[in-house]
Amino acid sequence: MILQSVVDLVAICAKKGIQNAILSPGSRCAPLTLAFARHPQIHSRTISDERSAAFIALGMAQQLEEPVALACTSGSAALNYYPAVAEAFFQQIPLLILTADRPAEWIDQYDGQTIFQQSVYGKHVKGSFQLPDSTSNSDQLWHSSRIVNEAINLAKQFPAGPVHINIPLREPFYPEHDEKIKFPANPRVFNLEHYSVQLSEESLKRLSNRLQSFSKILIVAGQQYPNSALQAVLDQLSKEKKVVIITDTISNLQSEQTISLHDHWLGNSSLSQELEPELIISFGKSVISKSLKLFLRKTQASHWHVQEDGKAKDTFQRLSRTIPSSPSSFFNWLAITLKPQNQDFQNNWVDLEQKAKAALGKVFEITEFGEYSALAFCLSKTPLLSKIHVANSMAVRYLNLLGKRDQEVSCNRGTSGIDGSNSTAVGCTFTTKDTVTLITGDMAFFYDRNAFWHNYAIPNLRIILLNNHAGGIFRLIDGPKNQPELEEYFETKQKLTAQHLATEYGFFYSKVVNQEELEASLEDFYKDSLHPKILEIETSSPDNAEILKSVKEKIKLSLEN
Amino acid sequence: MILQSVVDLVAICAKKGIQNAILSPGSRCAPLTLAFARHPQIHSRTISDERSAAFIALGMAQQLEEPVALACTSGSAALNYYPAVAEAFFQQIPLLILTADRPAEWIDQYDGQTIFQQSVYGKHVKGSFQLPDSTSNSDQLWHSSRIVNEAINLAKQFPAGPVHINIPLREPFYPEHDEKIKFPANPRVFNLEHYSVQLSEESLKRLSNRLQSFSKILIVAGQQYPNSALQAVLDQLSKEKKVVIITDTISNLQSEQTISLHDHWLGNSSLSQELEPELIISFGKSVISKSLKLFLRKTQASHWHVQEDGKAKDTFQRLSRTIPSSPSSFFNWLAITLKPQNQDFQNNWVDLEQKAKAALGKVFEITEFGEYSALAFCLSKTPLLSKIHVANSMAVRYLNLLGKRDQEVSCNRGTSGIDGSNSTAVGCTFTTKDTVTLITGDMAFFYDRNAFWHNYAIPNLRIILLNNHAGGIFRLIDGPKNQPELEEYFETKQKLTAQHLATEYGFFYSKVVNQEELEASLEDFYKDSLHPKILEIETSSPDNAEILKSVKEKIKLSLEN
Repeated sequence: MILQSVVDLVAICAKKGIQNAILSPGSRCAPLTLAFARHPQIHSRTISDERSAAFIALGMAQQLEEPVALACTSGSAALNYYPAVAEAFFQQIPLLILTADRPAEWIDQYDGQTIFQQSVYGKHVKGSFQLPDSTSNSDQLWHSSRIVNEAINLAKQFPAGPVHINIPLREPFYPEHDEKIKFPANPRVFNLEHYSVQLSEESLKRLSNRLQSFSKILIVAGQQYPNSALQAVLDQLSKEKKVVIITDTISNLQSEQTISLHDHWLGNSSLSQELEPELIISFGKSVISKSLKLFLRKTQASHWHVQEDGKAKDTFQRLSRTIPSSPSSFFNWLAITLKPQNQDFQNNWVDLEQKAKAALGKVFEITEFGEYSALAFCLSKTPLLSKIHVANSMAVRYLNLLGKRDQEVSCNRGTSGIDGSNSTAVGCTFTTKDTVTLITGDMAFFYDRNAFWHNYAIPNLRIILLNNHAGGIFRLIDGPKNQPELEEYFETKQKLTAQHLATEYGFFYSKVVNQEELEASLEDFYKDSLHPKILEIETSSPDNAEILKSVKEKIKLSLEN
Repeated sequence: MILQSVVDLVAICAKKGIQNAILSPGSRCAPLTLAFARHPQIHSRTISDERSAAFIALGMAQQLEEPVALACTSGSAALNYYPAVAEAFFQQIPLLILTADRPAEWIDQYDGQTIFQQSVYGKHVKGSFQLPDSTSNSDQLWHSSRIVNEAINLAKQFPAGPVHINIPLREPFYPEHDEKIKFPANPRVFNLEHYSVQLSEESLKRLSNRLQSFSKILIVAGQQYPNSALQAVLDQLSKEKKVVIITDTISNLQSEQTISLHDHWLGNSSLSQELEPELIISFGKSVISKSLKLFLRKTQASHWHVQEDGKAKDTFQRLSRTIPSSPSSFFNWLAITLKPQNQDFQNNWVDLEQKAKAALGKVFEITEFGEYSALAFCLSKTPLLSKIHVANSMAVRYLNLLGKRDQEVSCNRGTSGIDGSNSTAVGCTFTTKDTVTLITGDMAFFYDRNAFWHNYAIPNLRIILLNNHAGGIFRLIDGPKNQPELEEYFETKQKLTAQHLATEYGFFYSKVVNQEELEASLEDFYKDSLHPKILEIETSSPDNAEILKSVKEKIKLSLEN
């Protein structure tokens, strides 16, 4: 006999639109497992390593923009979810985390697979609930259905994020043989209606007045889901020469009208005065470019942040106003309100963008083969209508340096860890038939190899693995490269290639060490296939460091001319 | 220029006896990395996957009974430590966890690799500290050296456990080229002197009086480090027929005088009345045997728990007294105080132990090949003076069923997870030249495969891998085996063998599927080697379930005769 509150929980999930669950095996969680597996409207998958399971759920929810349910057994399973929970929190991805637990009286009594699970995710969830541990009284069923409704509403409400329900369960965990689970036809549901926030007339008037004192306006797009309406209004603002718009690769708003190559010049102090804005208007989440952040922190600009809930981070240390509005409606208003601005300011940015673009188009022709040029070449072959998941560390930095992408780009920039990029990409493939390209370095790739340890087909996954057998980023930043500990303690050299992994999981595999091999491999790489494919680009970390430096210098020269 | 408080921290660690550090790569933690790597008295190793790193540190500290330092960068790195931190907390293993962090003003400002690290381990550490983020004032240096002393003392004080110091760090993280780190010759240290607790004369008199009302006394040894003095007094108590002593495989106190095969009969209700104690005296941490726990919960016995800090868990729901004393001194007093007891009670237990032992000696001769018999055979070849680390789930259950071991046995029974057994065994090999045998199932083994992703030699590691391509335990317990979801959602069938892993890491590998192959492989398995060896015993999960059942029935029959 399975606890009715658990059956109801799953029925409420389904009725509130949760269509996917990632389960991990366990006995304590069996009632959850069985209820999810048997619910006709929920697609359940099982993943054994909970660290990967949670990142896979995150990868799905990132694409679907809807909560995905996660369920695991008691004990350290819940802790293995934690890296993905924190990533979801900072990246504002909705997850419904369900952890089976022993009932309160058995916690910390030396009775196996028990930790302190209540509120275990601390500040990294939007809410933390404890389901009643029995339903002997109808108020408890009311309480538990209320919790499930509140939790799902909270996960979805802006800013979306992870929510945790801890579920104490007593034996028996399993239904009798042939016992059917009876889902209620109409579980109790209360939904949160969609809403939008509107700036008051008074505020709009004040903003309109304030805008008149700025002639150099820089819009900075943080991490975003693709949004064609928003893209259209931003492009219009730029076309009408009213603003300069900076878009990192994770903004999913890059266009011919936006600046994408700023990383090539913003560290260059001789140029930066001409680029200085008077007003920064930001929206979305984080930006990748460290030189952008350092540049903006040095300006005297005012900084307005636009976000539905009126909260803001002071990333540039210039925050002067937070604007509770959706970016779309704010920029639509701005497009009407704003007059064309200082043309020199616009021209300075656009001129640099065009020069950098021209230089970047030619630089790899005169640069030796390395991960930077190889990645640039791969990207030229990546299908336009496809998705890219890029790992942290050098992979995302290269991608950002390489400028405008037409593909949808995701990256775990919430905590910027390397711990779950494979799994997040796998989660992405579970939501789409489009090609999903994972771009990753060797450290991130092998860190999260259990992403592939399951029985589900992921034929549309393509992995571009930049294997320099080390955390090559440490050779590319100034501090560590001069330390005698560089190779052992920073780069942490590692010998693996993906060949064995590919054989283990039946992935197609090719390794390339020069441009000819790369070109040959790419001919088939994006063709349809029954199995995922790995293209391993093997290079040397010291060579890559030289190449990056020389490309930087060449582009810098072009910019100064 | 590296922050003086970090240099002092490492010097204090060394002066207080910390000899080992496990580092993980990162830039924010570079000052810690460099100070540890350069300290002449500390042996530092670097492990890239923080989940494994923390379990490796735990495996070392478990053996050394001294704190091992762990240091990682900011962000989700700290969260990947968490499964091992919880295990260390419940298993009372001292760890000094050092997490580099951004300074407070940069938390939650969309500026990469930042989470809420202060007190992130919640109730799963003995203490949580925050190092001052500057040393501009001498009181801050005093504060930080005080924190380090307090933290290490706390980690070591009974019950030992993990302690967390969060360390906010500002750039620059790296010393200038050729800059030397100057460790203070005499960092400020205050140590906690060793002490023992003594029961009052009045308490001893009361206990002595109470003891006279019991004639059936059962001593239950929970998880323990080996302790020959304790073992001697327990053996004496048993030899003098004063008590019955039950020892699980993780008690490290099994001898000819103790009961080790209780799992074979305690679930058998027809026998249990004759075995019922009037007084249970327990010490140590958890016990494995579920049937022992269920049996004791059904008795009417009083339960005394002996532990230095006077705290106790009520594992058997019969707790009536906690005795703040070291087990050794309490049992020495008991040996003097106690008169020989009810002989029938003793004889009932000893008789069953002997019958079970005789039956177990013969049963595999008439049982087909499977993981149970194969493991029994392997153990007969395992060197007496060696160490065993056994994974959770079926591996530790089999080991417990197979009775007395002469080797030192460790198992992660704090949270009973499968998440870190490889790494814990690797940590163990870092502390000894003795052979270390890891006994594990396939789920635990592949879950934690990053345990081997580093550059350190572990030639004394021997891995006995019971590969039934599933979480076979789910077929062995009643609930899930009757569910249609058994194979997908509970056993979570998996196809891997260890062959590719062995090739990747240069381990010797053999796979056996029958007794002849097993015997042939074992001839060389324990011979010295430059590389670790994996002996993979491949069996089928349904066969193993049948075998376990038939062995149980055969032994049950012998016990009833």
